[in-house]
Amino acid sequence: MTDKPIPDVIVGRLPRYLRALRQMSEAGAQTTSSQELGERLGISAAQIRKDLSQFGEFGKQGTGYSISFLVRQLQAILKVDRTWEMVLVGAGDLGHAIAGYNGFANWGFHVAMVFDNDPQKIGKKIDEYTILDMSELSPKIKESGIQVAMITTPASAAQEVVDQLVKAGIKSILNYAPINLHVPNSVKVQYIDPVIHLQRMTYYLD
Amino acid sequence: MTDKPIPDVIVGRLPRYLRALRQMSEAGAQTTSSQELGERLGISAAQIRKDLSQFGEFGKQGTGYSISFLVRQLQAILKVDRTWEMVLVGAGDLGHAIAGYNGFANWGFHVAMVFDNDPQKIGKKIDEYTILDMSELSPKIKESGIQVAMITTPASAAQEVVDQLVKAGIKSILNYAPINLHVPNSVKVQYIDPVIHLQRMTYYLD
Repeated sequence: MTDKPIPDVIVGRLPRYLRALRQMSEAGAQTTSSQELGERLGISAAQIRKDLSQFGEFGKQGTGYSISFLVRQLQAILKVDRTWEMVLVGAGDLGHAIAGYNGFANWGFHVAMVFDNDPQKIGKKIDEYTILDMSELSPKIKESGIQVAMITTPASAAQEVVDQLVKAGIKSILNYAPINLHVPNSVKVQYIDPVIHLQRMTYYLD
Repeated sequence: MTDKPIPDVIVGRLPRYLRALRQMSEAGAQTTSSQELGERLGISAAQIRKDLSQFGEFGKQGTGYSISFLVRQLQAILKVDRTWEMVLVGAGDLGHAIAGYNGFANWGFHVAMVFDNDPQKIGKKIDEYTILDMSELSPKIKESGIQVAMITTPASAAQEVVDQLVKAGIKSILNYAPINLHVPNSVKVQYIDPVIHLQRMTYYLD
């Protein structure tokens, strides 16, 4: 492990390696190579070896990588060898789908609370969650020490919600609202925006 | 416009420029600069100028870019100056949220049909869509000439669905199922996977 900061673009590839390695493991594989991993992900084997070498020596020339070892190492590097509680803001259709998503468990995440500002929704249940009033957002975050949030509000509400989240101590935000958010440098934002993904494919269509 | 293929990574940034420019326009702005756009997106001004210069001369030194002109140019480059019909496969909670999403209109996309293989769901309505049987997937795609699909099935079903989509003529796939898909080189896939985005942020948490 070096002390130099790892480039963000490399960090961004590690979760994809972890996803693919766990799929291989579930399919019964015990070892893999940078070639095999690369083919699966559309990334060159050289790139994968270079990325992983930033964090230490994970494989031996010729024998490849132990999948279970590499999975554990990547989980530790990405800090998902623990479970991060999350708040979800926005209890519309998308919030509903995300609150009920069963793909967070075992991958390091758990939705702890769901908030909305609609009096028609507050107090109602979606899955096991009772929808909480936005007025409770800040105290609940501070009390729980939660650092991760997901936003599924309309675009028009998202910046105000983010400002509240940041003030309350949130450090990582996954934003589903189709708008660019302004946050301090100490806060990370990732965007999920289907239009952005679709548009980069239509470029290639006739 | 040059004849050299534009690197995929540049194409991938254009939808983000378009999103930001339209937000500026909605806020009443008429011109912008690569500096302003860059600050908004966390991309260097030099990178933005370089990216845009791949496609022609869009701005003048000192006077900046006309937002409406640049929006029209980007829409034409990304081929979203028209509307792409899409099929959606998977009518669960997430499929429901996506079928009802109002962020596709005006951005070049429209959900035309929704499919599922669950007899409990087939024939029922979500929003204005009557859920269609998977057995109709291939003939409906061929008949309509649709090239774009979104997948919101469970991971275990996604590859089989993709194989059907590709055979029927789909060229662009937005995949919400948390699994890597195998497709021919002629087919583009983009992934939406909240865990991948969350994990690249927890790396930076303590």
